[in-house]
Amino acid sequence: MREKTFVLAPDSFKESMTAKEVCIAMESGLRKIYPEASYIHVPMADGGEGTVQSLVDASGGEIHYRKVVGPLGQPVTAKYGILGDGQTAAIEMASASGIQLVDKADRNPLITTTYGTGELILECLEQGIRKIIIGIGGSATNDGGAGMAEALGARFIDEAGELLPRGGGSLGRLSSVDISSLDARLQQVQLIVACDVTNPLCGDHGASAVFGPQKGATPEMVQQLDANLAHYAAVVKQQLHKDVRDLPGAGAAGGLGAGLMIFTQATLQKGIEIVIEYTGLARKLADADFVFTGEGGIDFQTKFGKTPYGVARTAKANGKKVIALAGYIGEGIETLYAEGIDAIFGIVPGASGLEQLLAEGPANVERTCENIARLLTISE
Amino acid sequence: MREKTFVLAPDSFKESMTAKEVCIAMESGLRKIYPEASYIHVPMADGGEGTVQSLVDASGGEIHYRKVVGPLGQPVTAKYGILGDGQTAAIEMASASGIQLVDKADRNPLITTTYGTGELILECLEQGIRKIIIGIGGSATNDGGAGMAEALGARFIDEAGELLPRGGGSLGRLSSVDISSLDARLQQVQLIVACDVTNPLCGDHGASAVFGPQKGATPEMVQQLDANLAHYAAVVKQQLHKDVRDLPGAGAAGGLGAGLMIFTQATLQKGIEIVIEYTGLARKLADADFVFTGEGGIDFQTKFGKTPYGVARTAKANGKKVIALAGYIGEGIETLYAEGIDAIFGIVPGASGLEQLLAEGPANVERTCENIARLLTISE
Repeated sequence: MREKTFVLAPDSFKESMTAKEVCIAMESGLRKIYPEASYIHVPMADGGEGTVQSLVDASGGEIHYRKVVGPLGQPVTAKYGILGDGQTAAIEMASASGIQLVDKADRNPLITTTYGTGELILECLEQGIRKIIIGIGGSATNDGGAGMAEALGARFIDEAGELLPRGGGSLGRLSSVDISSLDARLQQVQLIVACDVTNPLCGDHGASAVFGPQKGATPEMVQQLDANLAHYAAVVKQQLHKDVRDLPGAGAAGGLGAGLMIFTQATLQKGIEIVIEYTGLARKLADADFVFTGEGGIDFQTKFGKTPYGVARTAKANGKKVIALAGYIGEGIETLYAEGIDAIFGIVPGASGLEQLLAEGPANVERTCENIARLLTISE
Repeated sequence: MREKTFVLAPDSFKESMTAKEVCIAMESGLRKIYPEASYIHVPMADGGEGTVQSLVDASGGEIHYRKVVGPLGQPVTAKYGILGDGQTAAIEMASASGIQLVDKADRNPLITTTYGTGELILECLEQGIRKIIIGIGGSATNDGGAGMAEALGARFIDEAGELLPRGGGSLGRLSSVDISSLDARLQQVQLIVACDVTNPLCGDHGASAVFGPQKGATPEMVQQLDANLAHYAAVVKQQLHKDVRDLPGAGAAGGLGAGLMIFTQATLQKGIEIVIEYTGLARKLADADFVFTGEGGIDFQTKFGKTPYGVARTAKANGKKVIALAGYIGEGIETLYAEGIDAIFGIVPGASGLEQLLAEGPANVERTCENIARLLTISE
């Protein structure tokens, strides 16, 4: 009998295992039953947390660190990745400007800035990177990406000719945008923005109204921030002749979506699609007998662009069988069968607290995969 | 393709589902994928709690109730089963004389009695039963089965010719055993005692030393109880010419094992073997493609005579494939693969408290079985 090929393409199990660690645990379980099989690891992500790590792991790249300006101006050591090709970088904006960098009591989207994210992009330019994949989930900011642009050389000036203070609260006083010193290398670099939201910059479905409150905005602040972003978009439209206000995704990450579209060569794409493309998943699963995927939690939301959904769609398009693992199985998983996930198994061994389960993740993935493999052999 | 046959032979999931309810949940999940398959329910037990229910369910029998004397003399409504053949009864001694019937503060094996268990046997005689299966786990007693025998007509008399008070604390004053009034119908009834312990009646491995403390015996009480049982065995040996003291299992259930061997036509057998025999498991799984079993918990102890072990051995002897489910998967399950369990899956969907998991048992069994079935179809 021909030896089997297993493609292992899980997301991370948040707070328990990176995607790569899940791959290792999966192989370890399957190998007990299929010692001679081929195992292809494709650590995945969906554009959210863990995307840099997965793209680096999947491509044999490297993680790098750079000290940048945090969302409140404090120094922050942010992480970015250079993929195995040496020409592509991966950034998560949250690493430089994320909500997790701000204590709950200090959250204030009037003053938080994406400046650090701009510094990460600048660092990529200095490394000679040609393509930047940027995940923009988890932001603490509402500055329309002005801070990011400032780090790259743009100047936001008020009526008196003074530089505006950073943060979305100042944009209402924006009089002109000076891009004469914007880093020219940006013209040669393609930015692929992992963005799953389609919100416009302003209005009821805009950045401030929808995402402002979770960043600490009061209703009054939401009003001010929304008006400021509208003013910012109007000034940009008039002076730079770019009209991004109503583009889908402009409202992502407190308007960083808009900022990237204004100041860089950016295209927006669904996170999972980017990861599938840059991991070469479709090519890697060409010879698979079974594709394993998984994520910390699987439920009805999984089909809105999460990794197991994306992996399953890609696998199904290639006629492959897909088995998913999860630490938490929620409501509505039956809707996933039609999307290409053939079977879903929980890994939890019994009544247990979350902390212990997070610690025992690898053992539970291994045991579950061993038993799935046992089932596969007896039904062959 | 020939339609599949699934034999469903789980134990109960304690405090969550009876074995029959587990069968129903298993079928419900499997049927989503194999709607035309045959499903044979064989609700199982291992001689412990749930044995009466499972034997009744597996045979299409009936549960009956009788008011009897509880372990402390209090009235207790005990349960017994009459199996589908109408000639075989099933009793759990714990239902009449069990430790769960005595508050922790009131536990005192000097006075607890198996009298109620004797009344259940008497009830079976009155119903014309020819064979009694009796599970003797979970006793509150240490009376050598004297109470049981008294309920059936035996008289335990002291030197003054008076009846002894009930309980193991009085047996030291036993002078003679009068069996002239012992129910004559006992001679025509076979008792099959489900007994997994091999302890003798007395000594370091005897009933009092090993099981006395968990029934509330202090070290001094253990000494007294052990001496009393030795005296009891000596009187019986001298007067009734039965020497049970060192027989394996004589020490089960506070010496009820010995009492049954002395006063009834009893044979001792492992609980799981009895259930396998009386459910007709081997016959019922003859046409099975897959045998499903399971229990609330599966771990290294499972191979010491628990249901999934027994089912697997029987299935393997018939060349069948066995899949086990558990609410809790503990250490050492890898030792079960060699015993015939092909694959083991937990049913728990995520971090959760025991109470919720117990309530959601059927849904979790159903979902897990559906996904196992899905896996079986894709690997066919």
